[in-house]
Amino acid sequence: MDREDLWRALGLDLEAHGALLEALGPLYQEVFLSQENRPEGMGYFDSVVADIHGARVAELLQIRESGRPVVGTFCVFVPKEVIWALGGACVGLCAGVEVATEKVEELLPRNLCPLIKAFFGFKLARLCPYMEVCDFLVGETTCDGKKKAYEIFEAYKPLYVMQVPQRKDEASFTLWLEEIRRFVNHLEEVLGKALSPQKLREAIELINRKRKALARLNRLRFNDPPPISGRDALLIHQLAFFDDPERFSSRLEALCDELEERVKAGEGVCPPGTPRIILSGCPMAIPNWKVTHLVETSGAVVVGEESCVGSRYVGELVAVSETSRKGLLRALAERYFKIDCAIFTPNPERRRHLASMVAQSGAQGVIHYALKFCDPYTVESYLVERESPVPVLRLETDYSPEDREQLRTRIEAFLEMLS
Amino acid sequence: MDREDLWRALGLDLEAHGALLEALGPLYQEVFLSQENRPEGMGYFDSVVADIHGARVAELLQIRESGRPVVGTFCVFVPKEVIWALGGACVGLCAGVEVATEKVEELLPRNLCPLIKAFFGFKLARLCPYMEVCDFLVGETTCDGKKKAYEIFEAYKPLYVMQVPQRKDEASFTLWLEEIRRFVNHLEEVLGKALSPQKLREAIELINRKRKALARLNRLRFNDPPPISGRDALLIHQLAFFDDPERFSSRLEALCDELEERVKAGEGVCPPGTPRIILSGCPMAIPNWKVTHLVETSGAVVVGEESCVGSRYVGELVAVSETSRKGLLRALAERYFKIDCAIFTPNPERRRHLASMVAQSGAQGVIHYALKFCDPYTVESYLVERESPVPVLRLETDYSPEDREQLRTRIEAFLEMLS
Ligand code: SF4
Ligand code: SF4
Ligand code: SF4
Ligand code: SF4
Repeated sequence: MDREDLWRALGLDLEAHGALLEALGPLYQEVFLSQENRPEGMGYFDSVVADIHGARVAELLQIRESGRPVVGTFCVFVPKEVIWALGGACVGLCAGVEVATEKVEELLPRNLCPLIKAFFGFKLARLCPYMEVCDFLVGETTCDGKKKAYEIFEAYKPLYVMQVPQRKDEASFTLWLEEIRRFVNHLEEVLGKALSPQKLREAIELINRKRKALARLNRLRFNDPPPISGRDALLIHQLAFFDDPERFSSRLEALCDELEERVKAGEGVCPPGTPRIILSGCPMAIPNWKVTHLVETSGAVVVGEESCVGSRYVGELVAVSETSRKGLLRALAERYFKIDCAIFTPNPERRRHLASMVAQSGAQGVIHYALKFCDPYTVESYLVERESPVPVLRLETDYSPEDREQLRTRIEAFLEMLS
Repeated sequence: MDREDLWRALGLDLEAHGALLEALGPLYQEVFLSQENRPEGMGYFDSVVADIHGARVAELLQIRESGRPVVGTFCVFVPKEVIWALGGACVGLCAGVEVATEKVEELLPRNLCPLIKAFFGFKLARLCPYMEVCDFLVGETTCDGKKKAYEIFEAYKPLYVMQVPQRKDEASFTLWLEEIRRFVNHLEEVLGKALSPQKLREAIELINRKRKALARLNRLRFNDPPPISGRDALLIHQLAFFDDPERFSSRLEALCDELEERVKAGEGVCPPGTPRIILSGCPMAIPNWKVTHLVETSGAVVVGEESCVGSRYVGELVAVSETSRKGLLRALAERYFKIDCAIFTPNPERRRHLASMVAQSGAQGVIHYALKFCDPYTVESYLVERESPVPVLRLETDYSPEDREQLRTRIEAFLEMLS
């Protein structure tokens, strides 16, 4: 299908959408294509971005037209394996750019996390083909902003909400397991088909493979010099939310093979000894590359993201030792319950995880990245700084480019302090 | 004990504390004592405020010195009956004025709800004798801001946290009942004594009596003209969090008797037909009287507060038909589970409750009061406005007096529109 026809079929605002895509080109050029010594394997990911609202959207539309569900999510808590096991496809809908702010602020308070306002904006302005191609969405009771915003958003798109508990004790796990069962029952009812344990195992393996490849990528970055830039690695994590999992995994595995060769050859994207930074905090949804780009054009390199677009997404694999439906759902619940998002209280796991990333990567500093008005991460950042083994720079920002120079100044001063 | 000795014994910063109390006098004069035609029964409550950090604090210190625990809370979800039943005393610690902002902002993000910053400030600046007299505090996982801030606050004061679920289904109720049991077990362990069902029944009756008296007050306000101002009624609700429950109830009952006489005599605090307003939203902790004062000095009268310092605190009575520990705890869990705070999703109960208050009171308008950066209430306010049977003015404000004139202009325009 011709791209314009595709977008028209999905009801996009063609004019505004065209302008949006046009703005992406130069930004991508500046942030990505201008980098030196990029791995060849990035070619595939470049091509995905070059056709970001094209080929993959067409695939999803086909899935949908063949009667299989396309499901959108906003959080890594949603156990996507279940959706794939039922023949569906899953896409992450978080957006890293704000659009239609005026319309959004008729529905939502101005003082709200940009991530939430962004997905509202894309819907209200009819700019996101991924949102439009979805049959329905799955939300979750994570932060207050999202949890409450879903109550308004459901007027615009069918939405199912999962309850995520707020603590990591037994009673909370019981609730969470129950929530996953309820979710599966709901999907089975809506789709009129039963979840087969065999298919669930296959889906778990499909997603495990993707997580394994991402974990391998992240380990390779621990080398000095790292064989890939933080920008490219961030982009790969961002695309993991959209792309076909099988194709994505195989391309990423090929890239990792190449990176291994580079490491053996002592080849990297920067000189050995370049200051190494771990980013930690809120998700950076595509095309939010602001802070990584600033860090990497200020003489440092990002060697890990303790984030949901990063290591918190990758997390652990789901155990597939079980064969029964009950056993597999419990394995899923256990894996997802370990996610160390700041919505949990207390959340020492996240600080431990960050400390281990610092140790493994040899990072000299942590930049804590919080989206403005995000209470879970802005409040927790105090504890992150207090307990970090290396210095922490705490940033609070939104999607606007306006604070770029101010951020650069703070980042440069931080890097100077590290050296 | 001499007041100064009392405050010294509690470790207050005497100088700053003196300045704080001195600022309260003229404000109280302006907001309360200047009112015309006040009920005589307000004399008791005036006297409580006149000695706000004195007599009651001395009583609590005595309770503590006699080996009974004094427990501080920040939310109406904490089932205080259990604390009273175990021989303890309970105080609400929310504060309606920000102090020591600079110190607070070393620990907390600037963009955080003023209520949270206020209780941090009082602790850091050693200004609140109620906070200091407490043996320990009980927090709850309600909003993100409080939930996460407790993780930092526990370094300053022993703190136990209850998990409040985020939805109103069976699995959530199970979790909540379990949380109440866990809380009781914890208290029993700490205090080294068992909860007696008989004492629990008595405590339930003690608090039921207070809620009954407040409900009676609130029903009396539905008369036109109301026999008491919104300011005085708000103050009474605020003092309900501090005062000795028995004394408070008997004084409030006497006041209600007086108000009944007034109603019979057609006497009120304003002429019949004065525009009637329901306030709805975030709690207004003492001495936060800003919006009520503005409304009532702009030609209208506040006839109800759909708020945790208001009808959401009053709520329903706890059923005492049960006699077993298990039965009573379940009755408690059921009563508290009905609280229609905006942290729940979805939360249609709150809109229904508000609509019924509007109908019963004959209010012509609703003013939605949200504290700045409070996601649960600022986001939900959209739904409140959309579903309200009468016009809604949505305000977002903090504790500073700076926006007073701006608020007044908006309130006046709203009242004009209603008439
Ligand atoms: S940061 Fe928390 S709420 Fe956000 S996507 Fe990650 S797990 Fe979900
Ligand atoms: S960044 Fe924070 S406020 Fe925004 S959606 Fe994620 S957890 Fe919620
Ligand atoms: S508004 Fe909600 S969180 Fe705040 S005191 Fe009331 S019930 Fe608790
Ligand atoms: S007013 Fe809102 S943000 Fe503040 S403590 Fe209450 S629920 Fe939390």
